Amino acid sequence: MKPTDISDLPPDDVSAESLDVESLARKFQKELNSGLISLVLLSVLARAGEDLYGYQIAKRLQGDGNTGIPMKQGALYPVLRTLSAHGLLASRVVPSYAGPPRRYYKITPAGREALLRWNTIWSSTRDFVDNVAARTAPNTTPPTE
Amino acid sequence: MKPTDISDLPPDDVSAESLDVESLARKFQKELNSGLISLVLLSVLARAGEDLYGYQIAKRLQGDGNTGIPMKQGALYPVLRTLSAHGLLASRVVPSYAGPPRRYYKITPAGREALLRWNTIWSSTRDFVDNVAARTAPNTTPPTE
Repeated sequence: MKPTDISDLPPDDVSAESLDVESLARKFQKELNSGLISLVLLSVLARAGEDLYGYQIAKRLQGDGNTGIPMKQGALYPVLRTLSAHGLLASRVVPSYAGPPRRYYKITPAGREALLRWNTIWSSTRDFVDNVAARTAPNTTPPTE
Repeated sequence: MKPTDISDLPPDDVSAESLDVESLARKFQKELNSGLISLVLLSVLARAGEDLYGYQIAKRLQGDGNTGIPMKQGALYPVLRTLSAHGLLASRVVPSYAGPPRRYYKITPAGREALLRWNTIWSSTRDFVDNVAARTAPNTTPPTE
């Protein structure tokens, strides 16, 4: 259902597509994470003081078990590659004593610059979302017609 | 560049795709918003105490001009339709004295249930993101091998 004009919709668009609350919650968490994973990865690497490889980064993302962004370790790698492709991370491959070589990541100067900017965006967006529920209704006078 | 194995990558994947900080900031804001718009729309309608149409909702999203989620009014409608399709909003069309009829939206009981759940997800994700930069490095001992 993709109407291009709002007046194309039937008067009552009660839908048969309703999802249960848990499915919608997973969808919400997934969408929320997609924007925040990059910020969190840059933060972790900015504060690490050393190169980190995937497993180490994943451990830091897990938090204390109560908080933390629920994501599989395998889901990290596409984000690490995207951040690298944008020049925000640099990486090198180091042979391992056992198993495949490990790719270590570090933040670049461009990454630190992006992180500063993203933190500002995060702060103002976070404050807005937190305030929307709390503040009283502002002036919503419709346009004169 | 979509390698399936991390060891397929060249040792130094310094990329030519680097974007400037402003482009990356817009990309970050856009991804962040995509998850949060639904939460904010549900919050606005949950607290409105009356049906609202697009323009009124957009006004409340604009905030005070300093905060607020920067988005065009036209970008609201797909989100309102998705929320309606999922049964979280109901709507009715009301004729206008001038111009096209207006579609008014209100939150449904399922929408209030989803909002409660999403607010919990938002709080814990927000706190995790805020803490990642602040907390000291946790135990990141690699697996024994």
